[in-house]
Amino acid sequence: MLKLNFNHTIEKFRNIVDLKLRDVYINGPENMVETANFVMSAKGKRIRPILTMLSCDALGGNIDDSVNVAIAIELLHNFTLVHDDIMDEDNLRHGQPTVHNKWDISTAVLTGDSLLWLSLDMLKKIERQREDIILHFIDAIKLVCEGQAYDKMFENREYVSIQEYENMISMKTGYMIGLCSHLGSICAKSESDVQKSMKEYGLEIGKAYQIQDDYMEIYSTEDVMKKSLKSDIELNKKTYMICLAFDIDPTGLKSVLEDNVNASDKIVLLREYFNELKIKDRANDEINDSFKKAEIILSNIDFKKDHLMKLNNYLKNRGN
Amino acid sequence: MLKLNFNHTIEKFRNIVDLKLRDVYINGPENMVETANFVMSAKGKRIRPILTMLSCDALGGNIDDSVNVAIAIELLHNFTLVHDDIMDEDNLRHGQPTVHNKWDISTAVLTGDSLLWLSLDMLKKIERQREDIILHFIDAIKLVCEGQAYDKMFENREYVSIQEYENMISMKTGYMIGLCSHLGSICAKSESDVQKSMKEYGLEIGKAYQIQDDYMEIYSTEDVMKKSLKSDIELNKKTYMICLAFDIDPTGLKSVLEDNVNASDKIVLLREYFNELKIKDRANDEINDSFKKAEIILSNIDFKKDHLMKLNNYLKNRGN
Repeated sequence: MLKLNFNHTIEKFRNIVDLKLRDVYINGPENMVETANFVMSAKGKRIRPILTMLSCDALGGNIDDSVNVAIAIELLHNFTLVHDDIMDEDNLRHGQPTVHNKWDISTAVLTGDSLLWLSLDMLKKIERQREDIILHFIDAIKLVCEGQAYDKMFENREYVSIQEYENMISMKTGYMIGLCSHLGSICAKSESDVQKSMKEYGLEIGKAYQIQDDYMEIYSTEDVMKKSLKSDIELNKKTYMICLAFDIDPTGLKSVLEDNVNASDKIVLLREYFNELKIKDRANDEINDSFKKAEIILSNIDFKKDHLMKLNNYLKNRGN
Repeated sequence: MLKLNFNHTIEKFRNIVDLKLRDVYINGPENMVETANFVMSAKGKRIRPILTMLSCDALGGNIDDSVNVAIAIELLHNFTLVHDDIMDEDNLRHGQPTVHNKWDISTAVLTGDSLLWLSLDMLKKIERQREDIILHFIDAIKLVCEGQAYDKMFENREYVSIQEYENMISMKTGYMIGLCSHLGSICAKSESDVQKSMKEYGLEIGKAYQIQDDYMEIYSTEDVMKKSLKSDIELNKKTYMICLAFDIDPTGLKSVLEDNVNASDKIVLLREYFNELKIKDRANDEINDSFKKAEIILSNIDFKKDHLMKLNNYLKNRGN
């Protein structure tokens, strides 16, 4: 591969992913082909497949050997988005209506299912280490479902500890991002200790990424995020900042949460409250801390790590 | 294995399946463990896992080698039931409320997803021919989702040909039942021509089974079926008998379907109409014809086929 700079490389990888996704599902029942392609063609950031391909590339693998795995992970991610959006009653995603909003719940259930089998079907195309990859993939499906179950369960609980929160996001987000760097390293035929480190690296990135998401649901705007922001508040979601606030100031947090204002105004109230208690700063510290840990893991692996280091920076700054 | 008679054998296999299903999901988020076990503990007929184990046994395999595959197929089947019940708004299944009825739609979406990963997770435990089995399994997931998409699409169409109907049911029901006998033969390490015949045998049984289901939705009762019967009518489902009637008497069928009576009364009207046009007889002929074809396929395989022949009879008589 030509030595492209970081921006060109991720642009190139994103194009590969977008192009490949266009061809994933052409022939099938028209209703399913239409809705699955509607989801696949959304302008997502494609972080997961890019991380998979970058990891393979960084470790000296041929990116062609990682593309099918990368696409499979993106499809698995899309499956979770469609079903999670039903459960969270979110109406906007990537700047367009969610499937259950544009069509109906039945269609969204089936579209999610179809994205999951498309994902599994993609794994059939892998030529090397296929069985090994499939087994890790099955674990990811397990964890992402269980993580979602905890997420829904926590909506009905008043108190969730930081420990429980971190366990939930490691299942829901961390493991899947860990899967990207892990499987990327398997595609590059890395030694098992390198595979292990790459998985840990992804887990740290995943943790940072999820806390960032929580953070941006409070401090960003729907225009920037291209999705509905109110649902975290309306569904009583346990975010990093909510869990932290409950730990240090349960009474104060409760009075903000119980304030009888609409969700948009509540976001404003929470912003002020989190600023005041320095919870905003602590969330930022936690995000930076995880990125730092990820960098340390990378720095201990002997390979061309500059693009992955730059990906860390790219992700670190995504909310800005 | 001791030479048990047919009834004892399927009773024994059903017990193995029921016991094994109790241990499938013990540790996990309580909400998911509860609902997944609610589905798994329902008093289903366990036809699919029994067929898998009987096929393995008939071909000289050790049934222990087929149990995990049998359970995986039953779980896959349960996944489809939970999501199909959401889509069809069915409120009763195996004599108890469906998941979205007992809990809510979000819970049912997630429960279906969890049954699918439990199914995939079960495949991880297979010790022999695992990759081969997983690949066939992925095809089954594909076809069952696509079959369901056609089923939903056909609800919105006035006319569906018998050919389209048969294609849809072969995807939705046939392939999954074919998967049982097929994978059972793989577990028994059969030659590839025997595997092929066993798959074809299952496809015929599956076709007969689905037309029987359509038939019983009209001619049986909710007490016998332990599920809601009205939804086929209410959802304008294209059953074997509806497709046949449209072929031979479109005007007559339309006037019955458009009759402004409630769903229960419409079932009575359809019964009379199908009797009159001998569509009832033709559906029975079609069912018997598929069972006959299945028997011929079996009779051409050199193995101890008496239990499978008896399974045919058992299935043939299930509506009586």
